[in-house]
Amino acid sequence: MSKVYIQLLIFCMFFNAIGQSKKQVYNFDSSSHHGLLITNKGLELIKENLGTIPLFDKSLAQTKAEIDAIIVEEIEVPIPKDMAGGYTHTQHKKNYDVVQKAGVLFQIYGDEKYATYIKDMFMEYAQMYPKLPLHPETRSYSRGKLFWQCLNDANWLVNMSQGYDAIYDWLSPKDRKFLETKLFKPFALFLSVENPQFFNRIHNHSTWGNAAVGMMGLAMRDNQLVNYALYGLPEDSIDANAVDNDGGLIKKPGQDAGFIANIEEAFSPDGYYTEGPYYQRYAMYPFLAFSVALENTVPELKVLAYKDSVQIKAVYALIDLTDSKGGFFPLNDGQKGMSFYNNALVNSVDIAYHYGSKDPELLAIAEIQNEVTLDDAGLAVALGLKRNEIQPYQKRSVNFTDGPKGNQGGLTILRSKEDSDLELVFKYSAQGNSHGHYDKLSYSIYENGDEVIPDYGLARFVNINSKNGGGYLKENTTWAKQTIAHNTVVQNETSHFNGDFKTGSSFHSQLHFQDLSNDLIQIVSAREHNAYEGTEMLRTVAMLSPKEGMKPIIIDIFKLQSKNANQYDLPFYYKGQLMDYSVDPVSESILKPLGTSNGYQHLWKEASAVTNSDLSKVTWLHNNLFYTLSSKTSVGDSLLFVRQGANDPVFNLRREPGIIIRKSNARDAIFVNIIESHGTYDAVTERAENTESIIDKIDIIQNTGTYTALEITYKDDNSNLLIISNLKADSSEKHSLTLNGTSYSWEGPYYFINR
Amino acid sequence: MSKVYIQLLIFCMFFNAIGQSKKQVYNFDSSSHHGLLITNKGLELIKENLGTIPLFDKSLAQTKAEIDAIIVEEIEVPIPKDMAGGYTHTQHKKNYDVVQKAGVLFQIYGDEKYATYIKDMFMEYAQMYPKLPLHPETRSYSRGKLFWQCLNDANWLVNMSQGYDAIYDWLSPKDRKFLETKLFKPFALFLSVENPQFFNRIHNHSTWGNAAVGMMGLAMRDNQLVNYALYGLPEDSIDANAVDNDGGLIKKPGQDAGFIANIEEAFSPDGYYTEGPYYQRYAMYPFLAFSVALENTVPELKVLAYKDSVQIKAVYALIDLTDSKGGFFPLNDGQKGMSFYNNALVNSVDIAYHYGSKDPELLAIAEIQNEVTLDDAGLAVALGLKRNEIQPYQKRSVNFTDGPKGNQGGLTILRSKEDSDLELVFKYSAQGNSHGHYDKLSYSIYENGDEVIPDYGLARFVNINSKNGGGYLKENTTWAKQTIAHNTVVQNETSHFNGDFKTGSSFHSQLHFQDLSNDLIQIVSAREHNAYEGTEMLRTVAMLSPKEGMKPIIIDIFKLQSKNANQYDLPFYYKGQLMDYSVDPVSESILKPLGTSNGYQHLWKEASAVTNSDLSKVTWLHNNLFYTLSSKTSVGDSLLFVRQGANDPVFNLRREPGIIIRKSNARDAIFVNIIESHGTYDAVTERAENTESIIDKIDIIQNTGTYTALEITYKDDNSNLLIISNLKADSSEKHSLTLNGTSYSWEGPYYFINR
Repeated sequence: MSKVYIQLLIFCMFFNAIGQSKKQVYNFDSSSHHGLLITNKGLELIKENLGTIPLFDKSLAQTKAEIDAIIVEEIEVPIPKDMAGGYTHTQHKKNYDVVQKAGVLFQIYGDEKYATYIKDMFMEYAQMYPKLPLHPETRSYSRGKLFWQCLNDANWLVNMSQGYDAIYDWLSPKDRKFLETKLFKPFALFLSVENPQFFNRIHNHSTWGNAAVGMMGLAMRDNQLVNYALYGLPEDSIDANAVDNDGGLIKKPGQDAGFIANIEEAFSPDGYYTEGPYYQRYAMYPFLAFSVALENTVPELKVLAYKDSVQIKAVYALIDLTDSKGGFFPLNDGQKGMSFYNNALVNSVDIAYHYGSKDPELLAIAEIQNEVTLDDAGLAVALGLKRNEIQPYQKRSVNFTDGPKGNQGGLTILRSKEDSDLELVFKYSAQGNSHGHYDKLSYSIYENGDEVIPDYGLARFVNINSKNGGGYLKENTTWAKQTIAHNTVVQNETSHFNGDFKTGSSFHSQLHFQDLSNDLIQIVSAREHNAYEGTEMLRTVAMLSPKEGMKPIIIDIFKLQSKNANQYDLPFYYKGQLMDYSVDPVSESILKPLGTSNGYQHLWKEASAVTNSDLSKVTWLHNNLFYTLSSKTSVGDSLLFVRQGANDPVFNLRREPGIIIRKSNARDAIFVNIIESHGTYDAVTERAENTESIIDKIDIIQNTGTYTALEITYKDDNSNLLIISNLKADSSEKHSLTLNGTSYSWEGPYYFINR
Repeated sequence: MSKVYIQLLIFCMFFNAIGQSKKQVYNFDSSSHHGLLITNKGLELIKENLGTIPLFDKSLAQTKAEIDAIIVEEIEVPIPKDMAGGYTHTQHKKNYDVVQKAGVLFQIYGDEKYATYIKDMFMEYAQMYPKLPLHPETRSYSRGKLFWQCLNDANWLVNMSQGYDAIYDWLSPKDRKFLETKLFKPFALFLSVENPQFFNRIHNHSTWGNAAVGMMGLAMRDNQLVNYALYGLPEDSIDANAVDNDGGLIKKPGQDAGFIANIEEAFSPDGYYTEGPYYQRYAMYPFLAFSVALENTVPELKVLAYKDSVQIKAVYALIDLTDSKGGFFPLNDGQKGMSFYNNALVNSVDIAYHYGSKDPELLAIAEIQNEVTLDDAGLAVALGLKRNEIQPYQKRSVNFTDGPKGNQGGLTILRSKEDSDLELVFKYSAQGNSHGHYDKLSYSIYENGDEVIPDYGLARFVNINSKNGGGYLKENTTWAKQTIAHNTVVQNETSHFNGDFKTGSSFHSQLHFQDLSNDLIQIVSAREHNAYEGTEMLRTVAMLSPKEGMKPIIIDIFKLQSKNANQYDLPFYYKGQLMDYSVDPVSESILKPLGTSNGYQHLWKEASAVTNSDLSKVTWLHNNLFYTLSSKTSVGDSLLFVRQGANDPVFNLRREPGIIIRKSNARDAIFVNIIESHGTYDAVTERAENTESIIDKIDIIQNTGTYTALEITYKDDNSNLLIISNLKADSSEKHSLTLNGTSYSWEGPYYFINR
């Protein structure tokens, strides 16, 4: 027994000794030592069906071709040195990816060349690891050894645990002992007991850490590691004020840790992940990979059924949080372009199908992904598709609660029906941890999967070395997180909660009411009382078709009530080229930033107009579609025509335009805006159709603390009346109101008629 | 006989009397009165094959469905009032389109409902036309009656002549006489003798006018109109200084007019149309429609064989002037988005197939267009496709001469081979008439059909009413036509030829040499000595692969020799987001226009850098591809980071970025630039590959009046040597040169080795 091993044993015993309240002893499924990748039963089924399951066969052939080409090359296990995007980083990433895939191939084909390759790789790591110091790059709050941060080390261990599981029975006991002693156990302990600030949190980093340690624990049949993973370290001594690189708090005092607590805390009961879908996608893999491994090896835990099967719900939430091309809505820190084509989603969809209710709608997503995982779940999907059990995936308007208990606001996606393809994403959620943006009651709009009124997303170019090593750019803080970067009201040029993370994290917006089942109108209303002290904000957003067969328009009523007189700015960012406007803007001959802080320093003011009527229209063309923003303005309001990119010395920001509607020196205020997609241009026939807005008039008939009543008149003289109950949201509440001599009575929080 | 008719006869006799030197009397093919749309023979073949020719059947079914829905509605022939985009404009356009299509359907199906509809429509026009004044909109140099300009009236007459031809035999002689007297003949005379400034030019307007008058002449068997159309008006009294709305000269003294002269003058012997492909597409329809009508009715004229079948060559030129998605390169005034999917191109391709050599490669274009014309030509294409005679259309590097005789410069398209899809469009042509831009020796670059180094195109939104009624914007003159808007050298912040149309039209650039057949390098070199008095410019552009299997890079050598010291600016506009640079730019906290005139007033200066080494690199990301511009700079040169959009009060310009390389106070100068497409980003896997340029060094080993020798060294230590003979371009000329002690001997204008 080597000296290191003895030290380690003593070290472990010490940790065990300090007590672990939830410690359990698991009776791992003893039918086989496999289960992290493919179960024995799954393997039989795969072998039976091989060659007759098109999507599985294709995915397998691709993987085999890829891995066969790689394993003839020399194994490279370089001394860690580089940041993300650099050579050593990329090589270690590649290694764990290859090991995982080679493990699959070994299980399916039984060809020892895969097992030998994996073993050789493990041996090289086992030579290097014991001598490794921390990674030389010091910027992480949790420095790794192979990579600059523990997070990537955890990615490595998750994949390696699957590779280890695959060849476990093939390895000699001596080799297993060597690898576990030199490499796997120390690696797992480094990620857990040696880095509690990484391991013992409620955060996607910890989810990866928990899964990594737990999966290696399962592969090794190590009760201690599995216990750490599921329930956290019993002791961690984390400072109550410690924060991570993103400024996120490490741990609230008394907070539970471990995988189970992460499931509990990370998802709302609807399966929404508070950081947003971009990070949910990232976290989903360890959640599901570890859960499936547990399901296969310790089925009595029933981990996938936990919290009313929230992990399966989370997969549906992820799909519902994509635009019609499959791209995730870039809520909070989300990089645009990430989509359900990502491997983590292939994995998620397959697992949700196999371990869920064999939902034929999920087959539709799998078919678009055109790929399955090479395991029990992927097999099930491929078989389902082969049997043609597929049903179209119905994306409908949907509401998600936020917060572990579902009581911290949420978000609503309004989707148009039938022939049109408009989507509106309305956010009235909690802060979203360290990846949250200060954008209460903001929304973004999509048509045909393309942005119309975009959310900026994050200011970062993930894995692009020349942009701060692929890490967050400072403009993420100075611009992307600030309120003015979003389509919501900014008071007195300061961000919500004054941009303070702690304050923002203490509050959340609240759903006022929503109705997604009315054929005439889809409507959602939410309030925010804490973003600015003394100011109450209520925003109601509705989608309705002015006429049968027409695309719906979007009505947006933003009501503010404050103790003090304020300046209110409501920006609408758009894509494309301005075509027309009803105002008379004065354009700037020299461009100056719109302000000096809170994101305003990043906006160039291109032009401004004082509104000269009570309906201000701006029309633009994007992707050959005409859009108009019709704004109910008062004389003296102003329209600012802005563009992003000021104070951007290294060209980190996109130069996208926006229109800010500004009301100055107002105590109470109401913004009423209508957004229409009304026309088309065809550059081949050069035909422009319906280039003009159909809105003729917007009348605010009443606006009190109790009710807001709005009449919208179209150019064909049809009109809509919409009354909002600003206080009472109960659906059985009876209301009656007299407007211009006509009395209206109804039940519920709103009244709507076409006339 | 009505009074109007008598007046008209006298009027016509007068015009005949004043003599018409080329007047001919045609013996129209008397087998039938048809031939403008479908010949009798074609009709037989169509009827024989109907239901068995998929693409024809599909196009016919679409047309039938469209027209059947329209002809049940009431005919609307409103009093002309609106500009392009307005109601009356659109309605009259729709009318002629419907008549033409109904004519086709009547010929094929023989259903009288189509003939009746056409006749009724004609009758309504015949009621209105005699009383019509000029169109109320006064801005055109040639005001029409139905439309604001004669050009649109000519569009109307071309289509109506086809409709008339289709129902000619069906109409009673009385109705024919009435329509010809009241409507068609006066209409044709209005477009010709009453508007010689429109009809008697070498211009696409006149081509339309000639075709309209000639086709109606053929339909009516009217020798006088056909003679006017083919050979122009014998007398026109056009003022030698008269110009059109675009500032284009109406007519040079002594210049021939008419259709034949337009064929002669409009196309170079290679089929290139001097205004560029956007206008060539527009002119192609009347050229070919009239030619086919002549071919079918007066075959002895052999009009399609004229000038070595230049009209057929022009169709190939049009296809070769598209990017790999089928969009026309926006040379001169070209609106982006126009493509070979346009109807005029469907027509052109079908005609070039049927009346040309039945080229199976044209079937490939027709298949992509997924549509055929409903006539003899479309039938031939549909039959060819049905018989599966299709061959892939090979787009290769190609060279086009400009000018009627092919001696006014030209343009070259370099296309990469095999796996990559890079295209470079190098322009060293003549001015291009009134639609020309001042951009001698400019180029643009495309990858996968997307712009990399774009040409701005025109500043106009065709048919979008809110943008100056769809007409040219003043920024077309102040920006799009100016030299600084293009990727070529500007001397002392003035445009080529000082932006003067007359001067620009007197000169053209010259091809120095080109070699498109060398496997190692594709190269083209052209000179311009007149853009700036006393300054000689020679630009050489080459595409070469540094290594087998790599995408080619683009080498660009711009050599200037001047009598005086000048400031030289070489801009490169790009798309996307800056990722990296080797220089140290100082960014502007307030944006000011870069200059005050010649297009400089439209550029914001975002940042600038003084070059600190002899290789300045700028890398950007666009469409998930990484590009680098590597510029051989001298200490003291500067790099300006600019963006379009200054002095643009009504938001007419796109906000696109550019990099200007500036050399100050230089008499002779050389710009050497390399453009690489070297890397990829995948937003789904978040993998960034080959993010860095492979260029290590650019050495100018020699640069005299006689030779320029360049060595490019790559990061893998491979290198290229390229020597350009700056004076002698003869391919058999022998050269020898000693560089750094090594002597090189070769034949021809350049020497190139990989080493």
